[in-house]
Amino acid sequence: MVRMSHGDIEVVFKPIETRAVSTSNKVLLDVARECGIPVRADCGGIGVCGKCRVRFETIDGELSKPTQSELNILGEKSIAEGYRLACQVKLISGRFIIYIPSESIIQKYRSADIGLEKPLVLKPAINIYRVRPSKPTLNHPYPDLDRVVEEIKKALAVDEVGIPLEILRELPEILRKADWDIDVVLWSGKKIVDVRPHIDSFKPYGLAIDIGTSRVVVHLVDLLSGETIAIESMVNPQTVYGADIISRLVYASRSAENIQKLHTVIVNSINTLIEKIVNRVSISLDQIYEAVVVCNTVMHHLFLGIEPRYLGIAPYTPGARGPLHYEARELGLKMNKYGIVYLPPIIAGFVGSDAVADAVSIDIDECREPCILIDIGTNTEIIVNTGKKIVAGSTPAGPAFEGASMSFGIRAIEGAIDQVYIYFDKSLGDYVVKYSVIGGKKPAGVCGSGYIDLVANLYRVGVLNKRGKFYNDIKSSRIVKENGLTKFIVVRANETSIGKDIAIDERDVDNLLLAKAAIASGLKTLLEWVDLEVNDIGKIYIAGSFGSYINIENAITIGLLPNISISRYVFIGNASITGAKAILKSRDIRDKTVSLSKRIEYVEISAYPNFKKLFTESLYLP
Amino acid sequence: MVRMSHGDIEVVFKPIETRAVSTSNKVLLDVARECGIPVRADCGGIGVCGKCRVRFETIDGELSKPTQSELNILGEKSIAEGYRLACQVKLISGRFIIYIPSESIIQKYRSADIGLEKPLVLKPAINIYRVRPSKPTLNHPYPDLDRVVEEIKKALAVDEVGIPLEILRELPEILRKADWDIDVVLWSGKKIVDVRPHIDSFKPYGLAIDIGTSRVVVHLVDLLSGETIAIESMVNPQTVYGADIISRLVYASRSAENIQKLHTVIVNSINTLIEKIVNRVSISLDQIYEAVVVCNTVMHHLFLGIEPRYLGIAPYTPGARGPLHYEARELGLKMNKYGIVYLPPIIAGFVGSDAVADAVSIDIDECREPCILIDIGTNTEIIVNTGKKIVAGSTPAGPAFEGASMSFGIRAIEGAIDQVYIYFDKSLGDYVVKYSVIGGKKPAGVCGSGYIDLVANLYRVGVLNKRGKFYNDIKSSRIVKENGLTKFIVVRANETSIGKDIAIDERDVDNLLLAKAAIASGLKTLLEWVDLEVNDIGKIYIAGSFGSYINIENAITIGLLPNISISRYVFIGNASITGAKAILKSRDIRDKTVSLSKRIEYVEISAYPNFKKLFTESLYLP
Repeated sequence: MVRMSHGDIEVVFKPIETRAVSTSNKVLLDVARECGIPVRADCGGIGVCGKCRVRFETIDGELSKPTQSELNILGEKSIAEGYRLACQVKLISGRFIIYIPSESIIQKYRSADIGLEKPLVLKPAINIYRVRPSKPTLNHPYPDLDRVVEEIKKALAVDEVGIPLEILRELPEILRKADWDIDVVLWSGKKIVDVRPHIDSFKPYGLAIDIGTSRVVVHLVDLLSGETIAIESMVNPQTVYGADIISRLVYASRSAENIQKLHTVIVNSINTLIEKIVNRVSISLDQIYEAVVVCNTVMHHLFLGIEPRYLGIAPYTPGARGPLHYEARELGLKMNKYGIVYLPPIIAGFVGSDAVADAVSIDIDECREPCILIDIGTNTEIIVNTGKKIVAGSTPAGPAFEGASMSFGIRAIEGAIDQVYIYFDKSLGDYVVKYSVIGGKKPAGVCGSGYIDLVANLYRVGVLNKRGKFYNDIKSSRIVKENGLTKFIVVRANETSIGKDIAIDERDVDNLLLAKAAIASGLKTLLEWVDLEVNDIGKIYIAGSFGSYINIENAITIGLLPNISISRYVFIGNASITGAKAILKSRDIRDKTVSLSKRIEYVEISAYPNFKKLFTESLYLP
Repeated sequence: MVRMSHGDIEVVFKPIETRAVSTSNKVLLDVARECGIPVRADCGGIGVCGKCRVRFETIDGELSKPTQSELNILGEKSIAEGYRLACQVKLISGRFIIYIPSESIIQKYRSADIGLEKPLVLKPAINIYRVRPSKPTLNHPYPDLDRVVEEIKKALAVDEVGIPLEILRELPEILRKADWDIDVVLWSGKKIVDVRPHIDSFKPYGLAIDIGTSRVVVHLVDLLSGETIAIESMVNPQTVYGADIISRLVYASRSAENIQKLHTVIVNSINTLIEKIVNRVSISLDQIYEAVVVCNTVMHHLFLGIEPRYLGIAPYTPGARGPLHYEARELGLKMNKYGIVYLPPIIAGFVGSDAVADAVSIDIDECREPCILIDIGTNTEIIVNTGKKIVAGSTPAGPAFEGASMSFGIRAIEGAIDQVYIYFDKSLGDYVVKYSVIGGKKPAGVCGSGYIDLVANLYRVGVLNKRGKFYNDIKSSRIVKENGLTKFIVVRANETSIGKDIAIDERDVDNLLLAKAAIASGLKTLLEWVDLEVNDIGKIYIAGSFGSYINIENAITIGLLPNISISRYVFIGNASITGAKAILKSRDIRDKTVSLSKRIEYVEISAYPNFKKLFTESLYLP
């Protein structure tokens, strides 16, 4: 149970089942943000846009009265039905269950720390057994551990149960202090990770951890209820040693100390997130008994400290596929030291356990029609299930989508232009650019989704040709030539926060087209490999932080994504963390993940004979 | 292979298959002693007693010429057959296999560091597999570990193979440095404990360790040949915290620091012995991959650091039965840190894994007729196999047999009277005492076997009555009364090294009878429990350091051992270490030990209703 003190409020956010405790008298928007849930607030939380509409399912306590803004935007009838604006309503005291509609959350959520979750049957690897063995007598002086294990064996069909030496050392004392009424925490039915005097309210917790190249996300899960209790995330601090995995590999390959450094910073960053969570929800680190860690293969090796050098040299061989599991004390993770850190299997050097977790989160093996999963990022993983076989490949899209190598490219942070619409105003005789900026302030640059919109719109309105070059004959105040490069001014200097024009030039377009060609040709290669046409595909699942915010129509316009009905696209957010949580919560899903990973056939896209041709074709705009 | 340098000689001692390397030009007696093999030298090695006769089976080198002593004692014919005197023959250079007849070794071997060994099929838990996986290619970039494990799985039908994180971390580098030709050291077919570039001559070693209350014995075994390479032993340094296990339990129960202290000194003493061995035979600590440790239950708990308090309080419940196994690094044992320390199962608080190892060493479960195994010591374990079931019990004989609580009691060390014969010389009109002293010097006291001889002889010659009291009417210069106690002078002051009479008084006799009654009544209790008569018994196996040197006839005379034909008694020496070695060398025997331990029914002798009566009866001399 989350420990509450006087003046606390307790909130459960649905449908993601995230729980928060916060002190009273805050607006819901702030509580949600503290909890890592990015409720929309396009107007900055001043009660005018109405985008932060939420619905209270259960109100067991006191809320602030509706404000004038709420009355204006929602109306009395909606308010009576439980609708409120998150930026207006204050939680005064009590317990609340609040439903957050997807339109109030996804659009502005620029780093997907969460994904869509499906219901599952809870069956975690960590289980608590209350054991009350009979006391020894002179006629039956059977040893302590064997008494305990016998009771566990009665409950479970297990052969052997291991116990850490340190716990065994104290077992005789614990049993007698607890008067032979103890809780045994067991991992996978075969390893004792804790023994403690029985307490009715004792709860075991688990962590789902997604180590992304750019971002580290940690979810704390109550293993009795399956509920997500808290979420924390931060920028992967390895970024200072290289923005992408290749540059980090280069850094790591220089010396053993460098590997150690990259290993240490990632472990420390996870520990920082765990401590933040533990302090907020007031549980003990010792109550965290398992962590399921998903990541790409480079992060996997650096997290474990495995020599990563050969991931960067053909044939890009990983050190181990897994699944692997080690005691937390071996890795120095801040949780119960005998708790288990479990790493689901990876597929290959550039298809990691994050992609496997993506695939598990949507039950890719159960798709009724051919389907594709694309996790778009610096390294883009693509998995195709034909219905008969499952293949996976990866393609180095590079960091263009994250703003790197673009004139005004920035990450999807406050001040980034994330959406663009361009049209030709005949009365003005010039192009008009409409755009939105994350955080609603003056723009400082353009993020990946903004660049896709820009290129798609410039192509649509006839500024760019199929090869991504500016037509020569166009007259517009926004099109200028500088140092031999033609560029299109998106926002003029006086409207920016950086005091100069934000523009896109031909080199930017080339870089974007290179990135999109990598992804598009990768997908085409895999489809050729399995002999499928785009039109055979039932669903295309788009996973990942970046993928969640792109405008599908524009992505299709530039040829990044296949031209099929938009209704067949499904955004699944941070599906890696969703998969990791499913693996944490269910041993059946864990087993399935292992067998799925063995089913997935890895295809080295760049080694495919037709790849170069497909790549060159993909450089064009369709 | 034992590493030899110029001028070294190599000797294999049979039948115990112990191997030694020593520098040249020493007499064989010294080489044997350095190797822990106690060849007799009743005359002190001056070539007059002839007790050190040995036979050279193979001579591949140079020996000294026969001395005059050898010619006198052995004769030329014997010498031609290979017989020599260990105290005379010098090993000059080369390799030798030498058979040591039991009469040349057992009698003077006062701390049984070895036992009788039977041939067995070598099948250790530690195995080396040479693995040459195919190299990864772009079309098959299967991970390093999985390539290795796949090869192991081809050789073995195993499900899962674990690998320590630190070894996994270095695996990619080791594989490539070794050009994909490695040796994998595997424990029990499921855990990798080492990975190293392949070397033809590489050998894995194992340790058999017997932690006795009084003595710690370590044998180093070559796991490829099964040969014992070296033996070391020392007094258990815990002795300073109490001579017997009960006093050590009392000490340990006082504080956690005391437990830690007892734990640390025993681990350190084993480490000292390991280092001695390793320095002598020039192998690396890292080559030692397993240690099988047998001991009584108190030593078992103190070695592992398990809270031992409840072993000393009824119902004397152990913390764990086992088998248990932990990595050497967990226990701080000086061997490969990922090597395994394996502890065979114990039976109860006072029947430990040493007794189980005893039982396994003689295949007690395969006896064709009812048999008994007695390991005589401060705590005496008795195991009876009726042919249908196997029962075990223990009885606290106390330290009388080790000399404690006796007026002139000392351990079986140099200067101890170990054998006594008394007769009445009519011409002198007095008793004559013949005795032997360990080391052949003037006596300083009497050890356990000497006391048994003394009481048996005094009873036989009519000095003591059935109750162990001196008859009043006997006239002898040796029988005197002092401070109300009658005593019998064994050796007069001028013949001793302590300058005073060595005598035995009524209190000494009482103490000895208490000790023998504990053992005799324990055995009677077990026989009643299983409804057997002494005459039903086929063999009685006598194990243990002390048991190996007692005069069976005298032990029968005082009622310590049952009155059956001496031919049915078998001395098996330190059968615990023999059993431990068998468990080290064969997984089949290891498995059998576990199932045998489950078959053995523990009987709490002191709780048997008839026990008090049997004990009181046993206090009398038969």
